[in-house]
Order: sequence, then C-alpha cells, then structure tokens
Amino acid sequence: MDEFGLIKSCFAALAGAGAPAYGLGDDAAVLAPPAGCDLVFTKDMMVSGRHFFADDPADLVARKLLRVNLSDLAAMGARPLGYLLGFAFPDHLDEALARDFCRGLAQDQAEFGLRLYGGDTVSGAGSLILSLTAIGAVGQGRALRRKGAQPGDDVYVSGAIGEAALGLKALLGTLPPAVARIPDFAAIKDALINRYHLPRPRVALGMALAGHASAAIDISDGLLADLGHICEQSDCAMEIEAGQVPLSDGGRMAVHHAPELWMDILTGGDDYELAFTAATDEADQLAALAHEAGVAISRIGRVKPGAGLAVIAHDGTPLPRDAWGAGGFQHQ
Amino acid sequence: MDEFGLIKSCFAALAGAGAPAYGLGDDAAVLAPPAGCDLVFTKDMMVSGRHFFADDPADLVARKLLRVNLSDLAAMGARPLGYLLGFAFPDHLDEALARDFCRGLAQDQAEFGLRLYGGDTVSGAGSLILSLTAIGAVGQGRALRRKGAQPGDDVYVSGAIGEAALGLKALLGTLPPAVARIPDFAAIKDALINRYHLPRPRVALGMALAGHASAAIDISDGLLADLGHICEQSDCAMEIEAGQVPLSDGGRMAVHHAPELWMDILTGGDDYELAFTAATDEADQLAALAHEAGVAISRIGRVKPGAGLAVIAHDGTPLPRDAWGAGGFQHQ
Repeated sequence: MDEFGLIKSCFAALAGAGAPAYGLGDDAAVLAPPAGCDLVFTKDMMVSGRHFFADDPADLVARKLLRVNLSDLAAMGARPLGYLLGFAFPDHLDEALARDFCRGLAQDQAEFGLRLYGGDTVSGAGSLILSLTAIGAVGQGRALRRKGAQPGDDVYVSGAIGEAALGLKALLGTLPPAVARIPDFAAIKDALINRYHLPRPRVALGMALAGHASAAIDISDGLLADLGHICEQSDCAMEIEAGQVPLSDGGRMAVHHAPELWMDILTGGDDYELAFTAATDEADQLAALAHEAGVAISRIGRVKPGAGLAVIAHDGTPLPRDAWGAGGFQHQ
Repeated sequence: MDEFGLIKSCFAALAGAGAPAYGLGDDAAVLAPPAGCDLVFTKDMMVSGRHFFADDPADLVARKLLRVNLSDLAAMGARPLGYLLGFAFPDHLDEALARDFCRGLAQDQAEFGLRLYGGDTVSGAGSLILSLTAIGAVGQGRALRRKGAQPGDDVYVSGAIGEAALGLKALLGTLPPAVARIPDFAAIKDALINRYHLPRPRVALGMALAGHASAAIDISDGLLADLGHICEQSDCAMEIEAGQVPLSDGGRMAVHHAPELWMDILTGGDDYELAFTAATDEADQLAALAHEAGVAISRIGRVKPGAGLAVIAHDGTPLPRDAWGAGGFQHQ
C-alpha cells in the first residue's frame, strides 16, 4: 500500500461505511439535515512550526485541531455533527505520524459524537498543514452570536482562564524563575502544558446556553481581545473585574509568585473557554445549566452602554488600555 | 492595515454582510438548510508547485480551486450554496496575489451563485496551500452517487475529454513535435492551456441528471480511472469504445498528428467533465436535459455484469489493461 493508500484507509475508517460519507467512496458526502435545525460551519487551519511543534505527539495535534473547531461550534450553541479534513504533508509521509494522527481523531470522534464527512490528502507541502471544517446543528434561529449583548447584561466565562498561556510558557521555558522554583510546580506544569495541547471545547455548555445567553464567543485570541469582539459586534462596552476572572490552582499559584503573569492570563490565547453575556434574570437558570453541563461559570463583569472594554484591576483602579493593547494574542 | 487585515477585509466582502456568514463577524456561519434538501459536502486542497505553478495568475488559481470543488458537487447533482476557504501562505503575504486571488473568487461566486461562509488564514506555510470546502444542496434522497450503475445502462460523458491533459503538456512543452509543428496550433494551444487552468464544472448538467442518471462521477483522475471508480462502487463492469470518446477540435487535431496522445486523453486528469450511467430508456430525456444545460453529452459505452473496465480501441480490438494501468492519473 502506498502512502496515499495508507492514509485513505485510515480516513475511510473514520468516515464509516454508512451515510453521510459512505466510506469516502463518493465525490462528496450527503447529509440529511436534522429536522428543525440550522447548520453551523467553521474552519480552522494549523501549520507545523506555527500552531504546533513538529515533534508534538500527532494524536494530540489531531485532537487539538478538531477541538479548536468544536470550540467555535460551542460558541454558536451548536451540537457537532461531522467534519472534513485537509491533510497536506511534505514529499514523504511519516506513516507512524499518520497513524497516530488518525488514532487521535478516532478518540475525539468518540468523545464528541461526530464523524469524518470527507476531505483531501495532498503531498508537496513544506511541512504538515492541516485544515478542518466542522459542521454542527443548532435549533432553528437559536444560534448564539457575538452580536446581542445588551447594557446591563452580566459577562461570564467558563472554566479557568490563562492555563494555555501559562502552559505555552512552561513548554518554552519562559516562566518567571519565581514560578519555576515553586516546589510543587512539576505536577502543575504538566497540567498546564496538557491544557495548551488539548483544549476542552465547552460543547455541552454551549448547547445549553442557546436561548439563554445574549452573546457568546470562544476564547481563542485571549480573554480581553475576545470580549472586545463581543463589544464590537454588539455595539456595547464592558467593565471587567480582573479579580473575578477564574484561575486554576496552577494559575493562582503562578500569579501569587509572579503577579506580572496576570497580563498573560488576561491576554493569552488558546483557552477555548466560552465567554458570554446574559440578562441578570438568567443568573439562576445559567448556574443550573452550567452545573448540568459539568462546567463552572464565573461572572466577571457587566455590559455597559458605549464602546470598548474597561478592566478594573485587583486594587480597584482601572487598568490602562495600553496595558493589554488592541490586537490580542496573535497565534497566526 | 497589516496583511491579515487586508485579507480579512477581502474575504469579508466575499462573505457579504448578511446570513449565513454575517461578514465573518462570528465564530461560525449559520445556514438555514433549503427545505426538502439534503446538503452535500466536499473538500479539495491545492498546493503551490504541485497542483498549480507558483507564477500562475492567482485569480485563475482561485477559480480552479473553487471549480474543482464545484465539479464534485455537480457529480452529486447538487446546487452550490457556499464554501469555506483555508488560505495558508509563507511568512510574507504577496498582497497583489491576495487581491488577485479574491478577485477570481468574486468572479466565480457571481458566475456560480454561491458565497463565502467562512475560513481561516494562516502564515508560516512554506508555500501557498489552499483548502476549500464546498457546500451544496440536492433534493432529498436524490443525490447522485458512484454506486447505482446497472448492467445494460449506457455510459456517457459530457463535453470533450483530454483537453486538460493536452493543455498541461502544452504548458510543459512536452507535446510531440508532430503536434507542436501544426501551423494553426498556437490558438488551439491557448485554448487547451486555458482548459487546464480553468475547468468548467458541469453544475447545471449535474443538477439536471439527479433523478435520471443511475451513477455519476466527475473526471478528475482521468476518464478510465474514474469510470473504474463507478465500476468498483456499483459492482459492475463496463465496455468503453475509445472511438466514441468525444474530442475537441484541438484534441482531434492533436491525435491526428500524434496518435500516441490517445492514451493521454483516456487517462489524463483534470478534465472535470461528468461521466455517468443511465438506463437506455432515459436516452431521449437525457439528450433534452443536456441540451437545456447547454452541454454536449456522448454515449461512450455500456455497463456489463462482472468487474473491471474493457476498452475497445478504434480498430475494434480490446486495449490491453496494462496500457492504462490501475492507478489512473496521480495529481497529488
């Protein structure tokens, strides 16, 4: 079997023999859309050396690729259905890598209940370049959007913020010495790095939020940049209290020893938590839905009339706008 | 405006302000599926230096990328709705190239009536690497598939076969001297090269065939290889008469002076015509539908019981299977 044959058989297994992809035996996949639903489409690419390291385990790369796309579906309140994969590799295919890659996809297909609808495999790329289109479904007219936040709404985030940014610093060895010296940091470091490698898209929470949140986004560019996107699309302002931003144990320990890491936490990308807004009278209902989805949510601020983001530091003073810049985290 | 800003604004214009992509302002696009339809998904990648030349006009590259995907939709009988684009470029973006690329997409969006639903732009690729997911709609349960050909059915192709293969040879300067010496060949050469650069996906014909053809495929790997795919999926054999395979004026002139080009015509890829099968009593109806779609169709053979493809040469003798091999054209 040549390299295309190998990868084709791996991918055919991920598609399954039945609809919509029929073992990849046709020119395209055919989906009967779930009744009463809108379909949701998103696409994210990952480039070796840019979005992942060439020696990262290929199963983790595959799962991250799938998960960053699932996170976009979650931000729209959609249930994942399937995906198409573009797999461009250099002139020679590393067969072990290909098998690991497919194993990772199989694992997450099972975890998130979706399957491969199709794709394309090409050689001649300078490095591994991956492109994934994810397809989801949401009740008709119920998709969450960045537009819709209203002055007076509460601002929430799921989970803990900044772990991926700290994980990347740990991976690169650029954490401040004061943190690297913490006795228990070895275990925490692994957890942070794992969080960077393997985001947890908040699929169940996103689905539950449809019909309750007024606007939503997934945190990929960094908390402040992504909240800024909601402000922009919703034509509103926000006041965020840094002291309310939820941290993991590792994050709390890190900022305790190196408070300058706060800026990384607020602006670091790759969290793939959800940020969303909701009317204050949704608070109890949201708490119940989040509990059911098994995800913590934290109220971190309020939507205001106007434009732009104000961040209140731990000491109650406003953080200067320059402190976090306009661009957010650039992971391109 | 930085390079990401430039390309973002170009792509936002291709998406339009309204549904489903809302100017690319959200995490994902939301589509209300057309009533009574199945949705069809396909994805093709193109790599600079492999599927196109680095100095090919970028608007033609964009249009070819879109069209090869539309050809897959046509093979399923689907009407194009929209697409998602993955655009990976080297560390530096050639801004003129990006503008040309978007201009090409805009032109074909207008021609084929679809729009951009979303995508991703990343830098750090060794060369330009493109990935496109196309979405179409077909009446519920009416999608054409490779499976479904029945012994006794006629085998048809649309348009003329082999032009793209001859165009590529012309572009590479590898046409036989006997052809290159033909006095009128300059004009014909341009037409062949244009056909290689800019396939004509048979969208209207494909849509018309749904409900009439028993199986269909688009000719991307080469006529014989793709007919072989129908045989394989439909569990049948075919007998093809080479003398019935339709040629353009250029193709006819080329094989007249260099008969060895017949093999290139039968096995060359990138034609993006449709090959399909239909019951003999559909013949009149098919002729009328093809006429309405403005595309010639030619009957080139018949479906048989058994397995595999037999090709009858112009002199009535069977072409040995070795003459065209098992793999078809490899354009990876």
